[in-house]
Amino acid sequence: MNRIGVCPGTFDPITNGHLDIVSRSLKFFDTVIVAVALNPLKTPLFDIKERLEMIADSTTGLTTVQVEAFDGLLVDYLKRKGAHGIIRGLRAVSDFEYELQMAMMNRHLDQTVETLFLMPSVEYSFLTSTIIKTVASYGGSIDGLVPPLVARRLRAKFSTRADRSAP
Amino acid sequence: MNRIGVCPGTFDPITNGHLDIVSRSLKFFDTVIVAVALNPLKTPLFDIKERLEMIADSTTGLTTVQVEAFDGLLVDYLKRKGAHGIIRGLRAVSDFEYELQMAMMNRHLDQTVETLFLMPSVEYSFLTSTIIKTVASYGGSIDGLVPPLVARRLRAKFSTRADRSAP
Amino acid sequence: MNRIGVCPGTFDPITNGHLDIVSRSLKFFDTVIVAVALNPLKTPLFDIKERLEMIADSTTGLTTVQVEAFDGLLVDYLKRKGAHGIIRGLRAVSDFEYELQMAMMNRHLDQTVETLFLMPSVEYSFLTSTIIKTVASYGGSIDGLVPPLVARRLRAKFSTRADRSAP
Amino acid sequence: MNRIGVCPGTFDPITNGHLDIVSRSLKFFDTVIVAVALNPLKTPLFDIKERLEMIADSTTGLTTVQVEAFDGLLVDYLKRKGAHGIIRGLRAVSDFEYELQMAMMNRHLDQTVETLFLMPSVEYSFLTSTIIKTVASYGGSIDGLVPPLVARRLRAKFSTRADRSAP
Amino acid sequence: MNRIGVCPGTFDPITNGHLDIVSRSLKFFDTVIVAVALNPLKTPLFDIKERLEMIADSTTGLTTVQVEAFDGLLVDYLKRKGAHGIIRGLRAVSDFEYELQMAMMNRHLDQTVETLFLMPSVEYSFLTSTIIKTVASYGGSIDGLVPPLVARRLRAKFSTRADRSAP
Amino acid sequence: MNRIGVCPGTFDPITNGHLDIVSRSLKFFDTVIVAVALNPLKTPLFDIKERLEMIADSTTGLTTVQVEAFDGLLVDYLKRKGAHGIIRGLRAVSDFEYELQMAMMNRHLDQTVETLFLMPSVEYSFLTSTIIKTVASYGGSIDGLVPPLVARRLRAKFSTRADRSAP
Repeated sequence: MNRIGVCPGTFDPITNGHLDIVSRSLKFFDTVIVAVALNPLKTPLFDIKERLEMIADSTTGLTTVQVEAFDGLLVDYLKRKGAHGIIRGLRAVSDFEYELQMAMMNRHLDQTVETLFLMPSVEYSFLTSTIIKTVASYGGSIDGLVPPLVARRLRAKFSTRADRSAP
Repeated sequence: MNRIGVCPGTFDPITNGHLDIVSRSLKFFDTVIVAVALNPLKTPLFDIKERLEMIADSTTGLTTVQVEAFDGLLVDYLKRKGAHGIIRGLRAVSDFEYELQMAMMNRHLDQTVETLFLMPSVEYSFLTSTIIKTVASYGGSIDGLVPPLVARRLRAKFSTRADRSAP
Repeated sequence: MNRIGVCPGTFDPITNGHLDIVSRSLKFFDTVIVAVALNPLKTPLFDIKERLEMIADSTTGLTTVQVEAFDGLLVDYLKRKGAHGIIRGLRAVSDFEYELQMAMMNRHLDQTVETLFLMPSVEYSFLTSTIIKTVASYGGSIDGLVPPLVARRLRAKFSTRADRSAP
Repeated sequence: MNRIGVCPGTFDPITNGHLDIVSRSLKFFDTVIVAVALNPLKTPLFDIKERLEMIADSTTGLTTVQVEAFDGLLVDYLKRKGAHGIIRGLRAVSDFEYELQMAMMNRHLDQTVETLFLMPSVEYSFLTSTIIKTVASYGGSIDGLVPPLVARRLRAKFSTRADRSAP
Repeated sequence: MNRIGVCPGTFDPITNGHLDIVSRSLKFFDTVIVAVALNPLKTPLFDIKERLEMIADSTTGLTTVQVEAFDGLLVDYLKRKGAHGIIRGLRAVSDFEYELQMAMMNRHLDQTVETLFLMPSVEYSFLTSTIIKTVASYGGSIDGLVPPLVARRLRAKFSTRADRSAP
Repeated sequence: MNRIGVCPGTFDPITNGHLDIVSRSLKFFDTVIVAVALNPLKTPLFDIKERLEMIADSTTGLTTVQVEAFDGLLVDYLKRKGAHGIIRGLRAVSDFEYELQMAMMNRHLDQTVETLFLMPSVEYSFLTSTIIKTVASYGGSIDGLVPPLVARRLRAKFSTRADRSAP
């Protein structure tokens, strides 16, 4: 049996916490698709092409990982890919509430889809893409928290901005 | 003694979870007023007229239920209606924190007002108006989660939008 | 319509937090029965007679309050009394989880029974019978946290114990 | 690749909530072992032989499920079985805290072991073995919450006890 | 040893809950700096000058308290001030999650910085600047929840607005 | 000003998580007293003499740390020592609820006492004395989680027990 799992998210940008969950999920699936939500409602810092590039670069060595953008309902995307497992990381209580809510809605929409929760390594338990962007915007060090390419791109993004705001 | 309860919210739109709480509250009150906050700070999907219509339609059979819009402080509205009970549903911890905070503030503003919390049926424990709108916007099935009129109006709303965004 | 509510508990002993919830519930019910669980599995500090006496004494002025012991399933007790509302106080998250679990089980056992949650006054938000007994056992002041009779009986209980343990 | 998962617990007795999690986990494993902790510190209502029988009876149709008792550290048991996934259900926040703590400790003890959390069906979200035993001890209906054999054995267990306590 | 603590926030506006935490922190520090985040991402109701004035006015009697604006990373600000303690109030679970996350990120950025959490008085446990502004905008009483100058300024702010929106 | 803090607990036995909190608290106090509750209600694994020895041994290098047993109310002990700060670690939500409850009770008993919460290092976020004892009782490795002397004593304690239970 070929098991396919989907790890969905906005990944704006991918962090070492995301990568930790992807790596842990490989034990349970023959293929894991990192599925990047196009999500037109939010304005991401990185456009979809940049987000896909950074994930692809960070997962180069992981031969059973694929990276794709998706739009529409997640359960419909899973059906198109022949996948039946959604992979999510659980960090904290606020996560937990939201994750259960989404998982229950997805189950309502498609009874054959199961959400599988994994726990990240404790050193990533405080990481979110939002906090990473805030720290990077103030010039704080994010090394060890994101892959090298992401760190470089964040620095480029915010130094450009600083230049622009200067007279 | 004529007991009047007020069930406040934005109801954008009303869901079966809201209706479940309203129905359960009827045991404790002679009259229950579903009070729709005009709430000028948020831009609702449905305008106040549409929201009131959908609630009125969903509560047709419930003779002790009234539907009204309100503006200003909830405690002032209760005073005007001669009501002393605020009815709220409790789904999850994040709900709980926020609800306690609001209830404590309302008690500070008017010591005679009491907030009464009820638990929705488990099948509605993951329902929010926001998740309903998200699923509907992607064309997902929301049958069984909202009243029939709400489902029709959501479909109309989002098909119109899709048409508009098409060239 | 005559509305009867039941406020169940072990009340070993009753605290001002319990009394606060009972007082708040009187708005919603024509009669409120404080129902003391016989609960043979735990060994209470006060026997059932003492617990009933302390509650009766603390609720003397509240003419719509009754006090009774009960055994067996709470939903069966409600049926015998013609009551359909269970009254519970909500203090904190740990409370909340347990309370929802019990409320869901009671709903499973009898669909006509509703649990109504009220919020105690903030000054009682940290009160439990257990913490009261611990403080009293060390001779700490519990005035303002329990009714006067309870304070006297706790002092008597623990001074007796101290005497006994002396040679 | 042959994936083996272990679903550990005391199962005193197994409930429909446990069975729901076991069924959902079958998608992710070629074999799922329901591992019953001997757990000498607690005094279970059912001895190990009874607990294993009730699980075996409830999982008769599930050909990839095995049932076994285990003693000692869970991570050592997984190593002996060639398994690398621990399967746990997540119901509520209190669960969540405890489960994360156990999962972190197991990861500390063996980095190759991963804990995979699944969400039970909402109708079982309030079920625990403890609440089932409490309800059954008072003669409450537990049909639909436990497998038929468990319901019969609980009734037998508690009617025997009632007889014994009668003069 | 001269101990310097920093109590950071947006303080839009300062509430009695904030002042309660500042007062409690004075026991542990020789100097406490109330540090107002310039925070260009949010649009505050009060500009930085107004926010600093209201804090200075509310802390007139507290001789070991200083008030300053800061920009950039909090840990960098602490280094510049020779401070090593961040002071935060803890009200509720949602607070707690967010606070732990921030504290862990700050520790990652600077291992020498410690976050110290204090508990506000229970009567302020429901207070946030946001709820204060909402109540004030509807003309509700906020006396006893904010310092007198803040109450006056809020009334002025919202009466001006009402005038403006009138024709 | 000479600041004295008290870090209370059962310490049965002390873990690296406890030591982490004690070390972090040294910044805020000139003297920190690790105060071991005699706590006659629980039966500890290690008697008071052993518990004090293990703490003294683990804190040898920390010259501003003292170790003592105490009995009775914690606030009375603080008064006797001239201390006004209680030091507690915060790991998780369940901790948080209980800790707030205790802190509020202690504040009720003595308004001059303040509880100061610190966050342990993430690698100790899952550590409790109970889980350490459970793992040690099954022969699991606890190195890196407790000080060396504690690890040796736990091994001695449980190997002795195993010998005793053998025929």
